[in-house]
Amino acid sequence: MIKFEEALNIVLGSVSTLAPEEVSIIDSLERVLAGDVYSDCDIPAFDYSAMDGFALRFADTKGALPESCIRLEIVGEFRAGGDTSSKVGPGEAVRIMTGAPIPEGADAVIMVEKTKENGGIVEICEEVEAGDNIRLTGEDINNGDLVIHKGTLLNSAHVGMFASLGISRVNVIKKPRVALLMTGDEVIGIDEEIRPGKVRNSNAYSLFCQVKKYGGAPVNMGTARDEKDSLRERLKSCLDCDLIITSGGVSMGEYDYVKDVMNEIGMEQKFWKVAMRPGKPNLFGLIDGKPFFGLPGNPVSGMVGFEVFIGPAIRKMLGQKDEERDVDAILQEDIKKKKGLMFFIRAVTRWEGGRYVTKTTGPQGSGMLSSMVRANSLIILPEDEQLIKQGTMVKVRLL
Amino acid sequence: MIKFEEALNIVLGSVSTLAPEEVSIIDSLERVLAGDVYSDCDIPAFDYSAMDGFALRFADTKGALPESCIRLEIVGEFRAGGDTSSKVGPGEAVRIMTGAPIPEGADAVIMVEKTKENGGIVEICEEVEAGDNIRLTGEDINNGDLVIHKGTLLNSAHVGMFASLGISRVNVIKKPRVALLMTGDEVIGIDEEIRPGKVRNSNAYSLFCQVKKYGGAPVNMGTARDEKDSLRERLKSCLDCDLIITSGGVSMGEYDYVKDVMNEIGMEQKFWKVAMRPGKPNLFGLIDGKPFFGLPGNPVSGMVGFEVFIGPAIRKMLGQKDEERDVDAILQEDIKKKKGLMFFIRAVTRWEGGRYVTKTTGPQGSGMLSSMVRANSLIILPEDEQLIKQGTMVKVRLL
Repeated sequence: MIKFEEALNIVLGSVSTLAPEEVSIIDSLERVLAGDVYSDCDIPAFDYSAMDGFALRFADTKGALPESCIRLEIVGEFRAGGDTSSKVGPGEAVRIMTGAPIPEGADAVIMVEKTKENGGIVEICEEVEAGDNIRLTGEDINNGDLVIHKGTLLNSAHVGMFASLGISRVNVIKKPRVALLMTGDEVIGIDEEIRPGKVRNSNAYSLFCQVKKYGGAPVNMGTARDEKDSLRERLKSCLDCDLIITSGGVSMGEYDYVKDVMNEIGMEQKFWKVAMRPGKPNLFGLIDGKPFFGLPGNPVSGMVGFEVFIGPAIRKMLGQKDEERDVDAILQEDIKKKKGLMFFIRAVTRWEGGRYVTKTTGPQGSGMLSSMVRANSLIILPEDEQLIKQGTMVKVRLL
Repeated sequence: MIKFEEALNIVLGSVSTLAPEEVSIIDSLERVLAGDVYSDCDIPAFDYSAMDGFALRFADTKGALPESCIRLEIVGEFRAGGDTSSKVGPGEAVRIMTGAPIPEGADAVIMVEKTKENGGIVEICEEVEAGDNIRLTGEDINNGDLVIHKGTLLNSAHVGMFASLGISRVNVIKKPRVALLMTGDEVIGIDEEIRPGKVRNSNAYSLFCQVKKYGGAPVNMGTARDEKDSLRERLKSCLDCDLIITSGGVSMGEYDYVKDVMNEIGMEQKFWKVAMRPGKPNLFGLIDGKPFFGLPGNPVSGMVGFEVFIGPAIRKMLGQKDEERDVDAILQEDIKKKKGLMFFIRAVTRWEGGRYVTKTTGPQGSGMLSSMVRANSLIILPEDEQLIKQGTMVKVRLL
């Protein structure tokens, strides 16, 4: 039996970031950028007005006061995207709209609310400073700037930035194709009637969704019988995926063939049993250099095994930085645990009064899928602990 | 000019949750359940073994000790999903695998690791208690239980639970179809060369992604010229969506026609200017009972306006509970602001040493899309404040 931290390190040391692929920027949302993106232009690309108003020469407003206004002749109008042929000479102004380029000769803009207009003349009753209300070329980004770093998880602002830079396609890290193979003679379709000894195939659904949630591309490989030939054939058909997950058949039972068959077809086994609860049996190895996870068939153990091992593996394959996803929270009840095992306790965690508070969902039997349904988090309790008192600060993984 | 809180209340009071639609459970991930889901079966549906071992009568093990073991005859084998015809009589045991139903006559299971087997006989050297290692019918869920509440945002565990209950399709709240109409003569395609007076159409991309991120279905309605007829025609074509967003044309400029045209075609205007920064002009109204937002064309103002008004509106339309998404964080620098305006300051917020800490992305000019790119959060500073000192606890919206 291996310790949890050691097992996780083995997993993370065994997987690598996948190759890039080119996608349209719309499809790059929530993907990881595969290379640095530089600007090949200035943004803004020209000096423009930040206000609706009048472009003028600031020197013309020297001495302007409410009681001694100055008057400029309006010689043209610049609107965003419109004609830009007028120039501003001494004693002149150009009516200008937000976003329009600054006319030749002008060096400031006064907002329309501060002016009075009268038959082709604008009256200005305060001084204006050079550069007022002008956004300068390159103020946001300069030609040649490194704008978005390789490895960035792309959000809406990044996509907008690509568009501004005139970039319509970008390289992002491929999504891992994740094979999901269920095992077990007891597994029946979800539309079938329940009968003694049979269970509906819920794991195929919850694991499919977990893969999607982490950004992988799930591939449903069906259900193998508890029979070596069936299992061998199905497992081989999974090998063109980037990551392979089985559910069930990894325990001590006489018909738990997954480990045997995987070893037969060439898996380099890394670990089998992990000192954790729920879900002690978590088979992990490499086959053809690809990560293989044999999750326990118990729904809760399988989902937790996914969260703590496979989620981080998918994130690494996607090139996502190993950000701290765990938070500290105040425990709202006593918890007793078995020494020597890392515990992942289904919990409800809330932000309350400037800190997180957490309590368990109640009985933690690994058969209780209903407790997983109520949980929004896992309380993580290290091997050494035995009794954790109410009020203690504990580590919590938000799901 | 209206205060921010008042404006937000008007928005939330003007939109309602959309109708339900039926989807496959796989597609229900991250959607909101439209009706309570009850169980029509017990889970587990039968008493089963939680261990690989032997099913027996606990009374037979009375007095068993390491120095005086008892011996039971193995009369059959139950595996998950296999044959279940054997019964357990006095002095008998059935070999049993995890998940297999408990044989008739048996009332406990001993795990295989605690037994010794020898030619059809199993040796047991400790006492077993009634019910040991047996998971009882209905232990997790009873027939008739309310399992998942209406209004739940569905995750992987919920989808697994549906499958367990034999439910393959569920009713979830429809995704709002969100029309996105850009406006402005200055807007050019993202593949076009930048030239004075023109800007690439980045808003269409960032807003599209924001709609997707919040769970809406964005509909790209193209770009309207700054010309009333063009705008009127385009706006009318948006009316079959559930929510309409325009970008640009809502300022004080002489060619900012969006408000006029919307009023002409029958919009009930609710507010236009909000006491906030960035993005004072945020036009909101109802047309044919549908919410209409006129966002400012400035990329940062538009994105922030979306986050603070449209995001919450979409969440309400999706039936998502108005969960507290804001956290408290320690400000790591002084901030000066203008009194009377609500400020949303682009910031980088991190979890550090058991609390959030936050600092601004630097200059907050609304032309700085690069600062939006660096931000992961918005610091929210109320109207009354003017100088907020380093070390103050401030409210932060994580993006």
